[in-house]
Amino acid sequence: MIKNPSRRRFIAVLLAIGFTGVVTVDVHAEIAAPDPLPSWNDGPTKRSIIDFVTAVTKEGGTDYVAPPERIATFDNDGTLWIEQPIYTQFAFAVDRVKVTANKHPEWKTQEPFKSILTGDLKGLAASGEKGMVEIVEATHSGMTTTDFNKTVKDWLAITKHPRFKVLYTDLVYQPMIELLDYLRANGFKTFIVSGGGVEFMRTFADQTYSIPPEQVIGSSGVTQYQMWDASPVLIKMPKVFFVDDGPGKPEGIDHFIGRRPIFAFGNSDGDKEMLEWTAAGDGLRFTGLVHHTDATREYAYDRDSSVGKLDKALEEATAKGWTVVDMKNDWKTIFPSAKVNP
Amino acid sequence: MIKNPSRRRFIAVLLAIGFTGVVTVDVHAEIAAPDPLPSWNDGPTKRSIIDFVTAVTKEGGTDYVAPPERIATFDNDGTLWIEQPIYTQFAFAVDRVKVTANKHPEWKTQEPFKSILTGDLKGLAASGEKGMVEIVEATHSGMTTTDFNKTVKDWLAITKHPRFKVLYTDLVYQPMIELLDYLRANGFKTFIVSGGGVEFMRTFADQTYSIPPEQVIGSSGVTQYQMWDASPVLIKMPKVFFVDDGPGKPEGIDHFIGRRPIFAFGNSDGDKEMLEWTAAGDGLRFTGLVHHTDATREYAYDRDSSVGKLDKALEEATAKGWTVVDMKNDWKTIFPSAKVNP
Repeated sequence: MIKNPSRRRFIAVLLAIGFTGVVTVDVHAEIAAPDPLPSWNDGPTKRSIIDFVTAVTKEGGTDYVAPPERIATFDNDGTLWIEQPIYTQFAFAVDRVKVTANKHPEWKTQEPFKSILTGDLKGLAASGEKGMVEIVEATHSGMTTTDFNKTVKDWLAITKHPRFKVLYTDLVYQPMIELLDYLRANGFKTFIVSGGGVEFMRTFADQTYSIPPEQVIGSSGVTQYQMWDASPVLIKMPKVFFVDDGPGKPEGIDHFIGRRPIFAFGNSDGDKEMLEWTAAGDGLRFTGLVHHTDATREYAYDRDSSVGKLDKALEEATAKGWTVVDMKNDWKTIFPSAKVNP
Repeated sequence: MIKNPSRRRFIAVLLAIGFTGVVTVDVHAEIAAPDPLPSWNDGPTKRSIIDFVTAVTKEGGTDYVAPPERIATFDNDGTLWIEQPIYTQFAFAVDRVKVTANKHPEWKTQEPFKSILTGDLKGLAASGEKGMVEIVEATHSGMTTTDFNKTVKDWLAITKHPRFKVLYTDLVYQPMIELLDYLRANGFKTFIVSGGGVEFMRTFADQTYSIPPEQVIGSSGVTQYQMWDASPVLIKMPKVFFVDDGPGKPEGIDHFIGRRPIFAFGNSDGDKEMLEWTAAGDGLRFTGLVHHTDATREYAYDRDSSVGKLDKALEEATAKGWTVVDMKNDWKTIFPSAKVNP
């Protein structure tokens, strides 16, 4: 395994003096590396990822990219964790409507709140995007950022997914966790760029994905600096600051990161522009979509789904040769939790 | 110097096998560390910085802060580089008005442009903040982000400061460069949080301060994703997206970083809220202001200055015991460039 005799002697000396840390690293470099993506089945999808990372990290290679430029952006809902039957953050908002309804007697007669309180899912669906925005605004403003974050954390700590009966944070995709780790081990800086609320995601992204708050980009409302009893607070206002979806994704990448990713992964039409923007940069680029094709282990949906609709982006992926993950065939395991996997 | 005999033997073995990298580190740990802030005169100001960093990095100490929470934010104009006689970015905007005037015949009669083109500085000053916003909007929109960045870079590469006759990027403060390095060497993540334009700053912050684009927060206009000949571009629009000044600084910290700094440095009233927000967090905090007191080597200004006005923040600093740098007495050297220092 270690062919060079003087190198062997060098390592023997190090071993003799107990310098095992160095040895471990050195030996690893000469034996076959362990599979960095064990939950991905072998095939063109996995190969496209590994080929890309190998190419951009090969010093002196034509596709080499210096570490600071190794920016990788990931959508969250449907790309890193489950988004069916409704976005997790929307499930949170609906629960908040129920919990705080006693302070809002007007909701008994006012849509879309009335539908939530009477359990009328059809009525809720009929309220559409406008209703969704009203629900999010009503439940995501009027408190300090600190109080909001605590409410989200408390909710995520106990609320279970209706089908899988585990915490939402157990329903992240194991293959994507491995991919994030693999990229970071290769000098990439990983970001979330999601239509979801930035503060909602920041409460769990660090622990769940090892993505720190300052690398989470999302939609947000205006916050306002105020003094309460001579102490500064930030108040969440019922006003949109930024919508990080569709064309908002490259715009958000520009505002919040200031450089173009070389690697981007999404799963829906809301990710189309982020992938286009990533692909249009100079040099080798990776653009990927998760296609939800596994109704048994997760969900199967694309063109006709109201949540995570994947239509135009899939057409563009086909036309342009973007990597498309066929969840059923490409992923050996879906979730990290043994409680959930069949 | 190395008192433990078995340790000495261990190092001798490493030396014998040529393992000098490890030895260097090990010896450094046992001899007196070199002064991390050589351009700062000894005294309470320098001591307050070193005491803070020592306290929050001491594992097991009562003030210990884990590395990911070691967020340090710095204002830019007047804190990291020169801001007199006018903000550098405004000097850029004024030059852009002159260079592009042939495309805008209406500017010949329209204020504040007319004053710029006729060299009427009083008329320009009279146009006030409204005039300044108009000048910035006119010169910072209507092009792609890529084109804008190139224009800024080209300008910074050749334009000299009217008094010091060197590039603006030579007029950064050497003591602050050392401070940034010192913080990073101690596990801090350093950010710029400035009222200046984010794209303007990102063109030089990485090279000048070793602060990468994704750690620069500033004011910005709306950008719009468009397709030009089937290629995506981001167009700078004549519309404000975010004003990162005054209360906008803690709001911006929340939007862009998502955690509260433990260390913040500014120099003007526009930094007051950032320092308040930083100071109000739990545990030990550092809040500092640069007070420009050196008319000989740089400029002396505070309460009555139209650029970098320091009035209420100085009062609050005095009342609350924030660190105030007396530039004349606390800084041994002002600029890194030998061409500029007396």
